[in-house]
Amino acid sequence: MDMPKPDDSVLGRKVRIVRRLQAALGDKGVIHDPVELRVYECDALTAYKCPPLCAVLPRSTEEVAAVMTVCFEESVPVVPRGAGTSLAGGSLPTADSVVLGVARMNEVLETDYDNRFIRVQAGRTNLSVTAAVEEHGFFYAPDPSSQLACAISGNIAMNSGGAHCLKYGVTTNNLMGVKMVMANGEVVEIGGAHLDAGGLDLLGLICGSEGQLGIVTEATLRILASPEGAWPVLIGFDSNEVAGACVSDIIKSGILPVAIEFMDRPCIRATEAFAGAGYPDCEALLIIEVEGSEGEINDQLSRIIQIARRHDPVEIRESGSSEESARIWLGRKSAFGAMGQINDYMCLDGTIPVSALPYVLKRIGEMSTQYGLGVGNVFHAGDGNMHPLILFDANKPGDLEKCEAFGADILRLCVEVGGCLTGEHGVGVEKRDLMEVQYSASDLEAQMSVKDVFDPGWILNPAKVFPLALTASRRAEGGLE
Amino acid sequence: MDMPKPDDSVLGRKVRIVRRLQAALGDKGVIHDPVELRVYECDALTAYKCPPLCAVLPRSTEEVAAVMTVCFEESVPVVPRGAGTSLAGGSLPTADSVVLGVARMNEVLETDYDNRFIRVQAGRTNLSVTAAVEEHGFFYAPDPSSQLACAISGNIAMNSGGAHCLKYGVTTNNLMGVKMVMANGEVVEIGGAHLDAGGLDLLGLICGSEGQLGIVTEATLRILASPEGAWPVLIGFDSNEVAGACVSDIIKSGILPVAIEFMDRPCIRATEAFAGAGYPDCEALLIIEVEGSEGEINDQLSRIIQIARRHDPVEIRESGSSEESARIWLGRKSAFGAMGQINDYMCLDGTIPVSALPYVLKRIGEMSTQYGLGVGNVFHAGDGNMHPLILFDANKPGDLEKCEAFGADILRLCVEVGGCLTGEHGVGVEKRDLMEVQYSASDLEAQMSVKDVFDPGWILNPAKVFPLALTASRRAEGGLE
Repeated sequence: MDMPKPDDSVLGRKVRIVRRLQAALGDKGVIHDPVELRVYECDALTAYKCPPLCAVLPRSTEEVAAVMTVCFEESVPVVPRGAGTSLAGGSLPTADSVVLGVARMNEVLETDYDNRFIRVQAGRTNLSVTAAVEEHGFFYAPDPSSQLACAISGNIAMNSGGAHCLKYGVTTNNLMGVKMVMANGEVVEIGGAHLDAGGLDLLGLICGSEGQLGIVTEATLRILASPEGAWPVLIGFDSNEVAGACVSDIIKSGILPVAIEFMDRPCIRATEAFAGAGYPDCEALLIIEVEGSEGEINDQLSRIIQIARRHDPVEIRESGSSEESARIWLGRKSAFGAMGQINDYMCLDGTIPVSALPYVLKRIGEMSTQYGLGVGNVFHAGDGNMHPLILFDANKPGDLEKCEAFGADILRLCVEVGGCLTGEHGVGVEKRDLMEVQYSASDLEAQMSVKDVFDPGWILNPAKVFPLALTASRRAEGGLE
Repeated sequence: MDMPKPDDSVLGRKVRIVRRLQAALGDKGVIHDPVELRVYECDALTAYKCPPLCAVLPRSTEEVAAVMTVCFEESVPVVPRGAGTSLAGGSLPTADSVVLGVARMNEVLETDYDNRFIRVQAGRTNLSVTAAVEEHGFFYAPDPSSQLACAISGNIAMNSGGAHCLKYGVTTNNLMGVKMVMANGEVVEIGGAHLDAGGLDLLGLICGSEGQLGIVTEATLRILASPEGAWPVLIGFDSNEVAGACVSDIIKSGILPVAIEFMDRPCIRATEAFAGAGYPDCEALLIIEVEGSEGEINDQLSRIIQIARRHDPVEIRESGSSEESARIWLGRKSAFGAMGQINDYMCLDGTIPVSALPYVLKRIGEMSTQYGLGVGNVFHAGDGNMHPLILFDANKPGDLEKCEAFGADILRLCVEVGGCLTGEHGVGVEKRDLMEVQYSASDLEAQMSVKDVFDPGWILNPAKVFPLALTASRRAEGGLE
């Protein structure tokens, strides 16, 4: 019997793939109109854009499995997308890929206050996880700045942190289990409502793997009892070095504030012009927040202030009311917006040992002069996670390239002082070619061999994380292109 | 040219391997005398014994690499051994294996108080890590009961916890980096003195991998500022259920004690007879310890006592002095010794969602009657990590087998209520054939495929973790036996 011959022209293949996906999800689940597709051509790293072959919006694990089965059979690359808030290009498509968006997967599946967990579909936004449990007196701790918009699936992919992670840890410390669709469409469950796991820690491996190993469709998350109260104090200093030394002394004393945020003069200036929070005119300021019962809060604040006094602060601003507390946070929370008002900027994300802070800030200042581009520093100081904002003019030819070179130099500096290329944004497209600064060829080979196990066809989130040349040769070896 | 023919008889091979290892380590680094080898024929799971081919005691990463190079070339299985305190047979040899002991690798390599880490050789004992930093006001948090003897390398292999892990997390939460020798003798470094990592979380994968992926020779560990003080309270209850409910309410309230230890009546009785700590005569008791400044301690204790009062306690025993505090802990710390005085026992290790405690304790009691073997329960209640002690008579034929069957039933129960086969002891030999209770064939295949990447010849810590039949077929596929 004669089988109809498959149409293997590029267009024929594209039409076939879209038809198969429509058969799996219905017409409304597949977006292939070029105008509608523009939403999916980039994420928050808007400097890079590429429209995909099509985008799909499944509603359940079963539908994700149906999509993966089609893509696996057709060897189509799949780009998983949470809310598209990645600053590292984590969900940037390639032209031959299907973007798999989880925006319609946002249900709460189970809440269990006795065992302190919530199970959600992975497309649910970070803040709405807390919203689902807060009237019972609970919250979900990791709180990236984008928490209003970003999805739990993206938090898991990038192992996201946030201001509160000094005390509560990052996503990997608050994730108990996942349901995941493998590259071939098979559905697996990893971890659950219990501590630890027998055998290899595959849950830890999945968290932070940037969509390279599978598509997470459901997550079991640890929820915590909301503290009785929280109270900030703002402390201004004459120099970055002294502010850094104060951070180090607070941590050494055994106090664990819930947040220690650091802003330098360029950031303070921009923020004041924009939000008028009334910050002191100084070189560096810390916003330190503590949590607990009234007794605990008073005890911790008084010890922090005592330590700060030893560092000759320009100003110690205690809060007397919740209005004053909100005012202390106002400038910090507007910092990124304020910098965006006065300039285009690129937000970096590197991690360093806390004691290297003064040296790294000094070197960034020197490089800023050398490149002729301004930098503002605003970051989570307690855990050494830096976010330098490099200012540039997108309309000035050559400025973006200079900015990229400057950014790469800062990240090389982070590795040089014993730190790491990334803290919470991931590698994505942005830092893939810097991975060789941190890792040897055999380190990268080990990481890529682990990906081979989960995704032998290298169809999951292509051209990310690993240096482009290595990914290309991996795909070529497998006869993939 | 004629090469001398290798002697491939079993004995000839053994002699050649020992000679090559002696050439690498010197005579004193290799133990092959049958009498001296008896030390290495088992670990703390003494029910299983097997003398190895030989044992080696390298002193440095370079010497470990030299050993692995020989073993890789000769395809000899290698059994890594910390201090031999594994309760799951994690360092039980096979007859054809080389035991690689790290007992001579116990140096402190670096301490850095500003960045709060210590770098040690992996054979250093857990408690001596704290000893190295305590006069500077720091400590290393994970504290397994065997902390006087057990090695950091074993803590990493099993992802060990301890009484303090409720507040400070387990080994994986306090491990920043490792130096590791791969199966082929190559040396790699993973992680370091910084938060997070680019690419896949290989450090998380190594932690808890039970020596299946490589030999950890150095570890960078997070150290924490010692609390100003710590204070316990002992609370007795009329039933296990009510004690369990009290634990749940304390955690729900947002208080995070540093330890919540649980003992049931059989344990209380045995402990009283042995140590005479003066514990109340009741069904269940909790020992709850809080840490911090005096203000924080008082605040937390008064809230805990307020919650406990709602559960109609038999007794609330507050401590008025450090002597009284020591007395409160005395019974708990002697519990295992006390149980050992009155009986042979097998110590299990499973994890359950905290709310399942009352049900699981009730079922264990019913099974105890059914099997005709006593059980004592003493465990870290705050995080659901149970350690039932099954009592048996080693001299009574059939009792050990009954005890093993009972233990397997308890672990199946843990999985059934949404928990896990292990908490902090690992799978080892003890639970390898129970892995199929928790994991599907494809789950296990994924884990074994990851091992393939690191140890293609399956020479690292043979016949552990994975069901024996699966390991055998893996080695057969590779033409390994």
